[in-house]
Amino acid sequence: MGSTLLSFDEASAIVRMHAEALLRDAAPRTERVSLHQAQGRILAQPLVADRDQPSFPRSTRDGFAVRAAEASLNQPLRIAGSTRAGDPPSGPLPPNSAWEIMTGAAVPEGADAVVMIEHVEVANGTVRLLAPRTIASGDNYVPTGAEAHAGDTILAPGVALTAASIALAAFSGYPELDVYTRPRVAILCTGDEIVPVDQSPAPGQIRNSNGPMLAALVAQAGGDPWLLPTVADTEEALNAAIAQALEADLVLATGGVSAGKYDLVEPALERAGFRFHFTGVRIQPGKPTVFATLQSKNGTKCFWGLPGNPISSAATFLLFAAPVLSALAGRTDIGPRFATARLGKRAKHDPALTRFMPAHCTFGAANQWPTVERLFWQGSGDLATFARSNCFLVLPEEQDVIEAGTEVRILLF
Amino acid sequence: MGSTLLSFDEASAIVRMHAEALLRDAAPRTERVSLHQAQGRILAQPLVADRDQPSFPRSTRDGFAVRAAEASLNQPLRIAGSTRAGDPPSGPLPPNSAWEIMTGAAVPEGADAVVMIEHVEVANGTVRLLAPRTIASGDNYVPTGAEAHAGDTILAPGVALTAASIALAAFSGYPELDVYTRPRVAILCTGDEIVPVDQSPAPGQIRNSNGPMLAALVAQAGGDPWLLPTVADTEEALNAAIAQALEADLVLATGGVSAGKYDLVEPALERAGFRFHFTGVRIQPGKPTVFATLQSKNGTKCFWGLPGNPISSAATFLLFAAPVLSALAGRTDIGPRFATARLGKRAKHDPALTRFMPAHCTFGAANQWPTVERLFWQGSGDLATFARSNCFLVLPEEQDVIEAGTEVRILLF
Repeated sequence: MGSTLLSFDEASAIVRMHAEALLRDAAPRTERVSLHQAQGRILAQPLVADRDQPSFPRSTRDGFAVRAAEASLNQPLRIAGSTRAGDPPSGPLPPNSAWEIMTGAAVPEGADAVVMIEHVEVANGTVRLLAPRTIASGDNYVPTGAEAHAGDTILAPGVALTAASIALAAFSGYPELDVYTRPRVAILCTGDEIVPVDQSPAPGQIRNSNGPMLAALVAQAGGDPWLLPTVADTEEALNAAIAQALEADLVLATGGVSAGKYDLVEPALERAGFRFHFTGVRIQPGKPTVFATLQSKNGTKCFWGLPGNPISSAATFLLFAAPVLSALAGRTDIGPRFATARLGKRAKHDPALTRFMPAHCTFGAANQWPTVERLFWQGSGDLATFARSNCFLVLPEEQDVIEAGTEVRILLF
Repeated sequence: MGSTLLSFDEASAIVRMHAEALLRDAAPRTERVSLHQAQGRILAQPLVADRDQPSFPRSTRDGFAVRAAEASLNQPLRIAGSTRAGDPPSGPLPPNSAWEIMTGAAVPEGADAVVMIEHVEVANGTVRLLAPRTIASGDNYVPTGAEAHAGDTILAPGVALTAASIALAAFSGYPELDVYTRPRVAILCTGDEIVPVDQSPAPGQIRNSNGPMLAALVAQAGGDPWLLPTVADTEEALNAAIAQALEADLVLATGGVSAGKYDLVEPALERAGFRFHFTGVRIQPGKPTVFATLQSKNGTKCFWGLPGNPISSAATFLLFAAPVLSALAGRTDIGPRFATARLGKRAKHDPALTRFMPAHCTFGAANQWPTVERLFWQGSGDLATFARSNCFLVLPEEQDVIEAGTEVRILLF
């Protein structure tokens, strides 16, 4: 514990180190889900090819299977047979012949290329590759086993399942998959000023926006959110809430971490025996972010003290807590995931901090570049502006002016 | 119908035009969901501020509320009171006084700035802003209504609900939200070679990977996937399947759209009275993509004939079908959503086509740039390679060589 502020890079390196240790040591539970429920889940088993892929030499075109050397003479070849997709492999291909074939069908034995139907002349039961075009051995078909061999591991555990990996699993005969169970993430919102969403705030009070927001961010990052009742600004309430929250794998608390008289989170963590990894980062928003861990008999418990203003909470969750959550979820690619875009308008800032500014990126249709514009905001509590943003624009610590048109980094959410 | 190939830009413009017309004319049904089920759904009502935001002048710092002119004299000011977050607004602030205040608390009447606790000296019931620091009126607090006024529309219908907009809805007192009902999307996989995932393919056959893949892509794009049984390569089977699929709002068919003898989709659509908007695009993969619509008494039915190879199906879905699906879902930001990254290795291609190559992007931690590498593939049926990719690298039609380190566009999935 202490008041030293780390740079964004230093804090990120600490987060990465802890996430990698959790990936090595944590053994998340697994569950089996059907393929149509698997999207976004983390694969917990190797995916193995049950047969060669392709399992037969597969034509990639509609046309004629040929011997390339014969076809390249541009002479008529007798059409000796026909194979459509789904037919068993046929052949062999007789000399000076061609074999009609459809995309996805098995190339007959003896053929070593497929000429495209668009490149031939068909007449009197023969087919001729039109001069001056020639064809090389291997063109327009995929040999048996070229994509994978039977028994190969074609996808390793630890990846988030995308539409593409679901397609591969289906192709390889997996109607169900073992995935890691989502880690449980406790969400503790602190502050005497906070009332529930269905209540009318008295003067000086506000409704709880961080709870639903963090629940959504946790779900999106692969966790199972557990929203606890709002915690009052007293030692007793905070001690009790932290004790309950430690049933989860990861705890997110918001509020109570800045320099004020009633900021009680750090003392409560000290009493509970936590070790602090950082208590502040040179970023805006999100400077008073606290990362602490506790070694318990149930493994490592990770605690994030996020600032109470909602934009600060969201940014620090994405930058620091989400990678730790990914690791607890068994995911090897832990993020955060930055993209780039072109800066729409010149940006200036005081380069003492790395800034993550609510921004809107226009993702170009056709051949335009994605362009990002910083939104004018009233500070890190300005939810109306935050809700109109779709990313954070990164203003690096070392750079005070960024010209319009420059390639900049954005953090998507 | 015809064999003219459109450029990628031309096809994208046609898609956009139709999507915008659907957005104008379609009136998707709505349903009410609780806030914790709202993420990713499309907002179907305006979000209106029920009170000023903030509803009181909110301190953004822990410190002391002051009159800026008095505090900037750097003389001791008497501490006249204290307001913590959640307390009702207090004051008025007497002359030559300061008022202790916490982040998120109401600034007392008469004060026009908040000095940070880190910038003052407190002694004998007084507080002094340390010279040479001064403070300006308006510093460190947000005036009443600065973010939004009571009655303002703070979020318009048609946006996808993010964690940020969920936070705003919670803050504004919406425990539930009206969202558009997800459009039903029929998925028709055609081809005699296709067997279900739980079956062992005979020689020449393959398991159905497009069905589960497209179901995942549809769900991700905000649709409700309806996977129909695989359709045999006969006129009768296809007629019957299309008739059934037209109960959905949008139909995706895969296979049966290239130049082969058994490609039956276009004739079946002609028989059903569809109007064709394009039947081919100068892209790879995905050239033989078909877009057709039918005006029926139940509104416009959109039909996509996607190529049968899975990578072609996925790319053409993301580029062309997903924007139409977004429009049917009531979403005003219809995509596709491109990002940019740095090219890892020099890329060359034949610039007659716009290419979308399976690629892997490393999203940099800390201050690195996202870098994308094209993956070596065996063509558009190579699922093992596709499953290791996390984006498509765009190689534009007009450019044959792209040097390493260049900013390039990527399509995320």
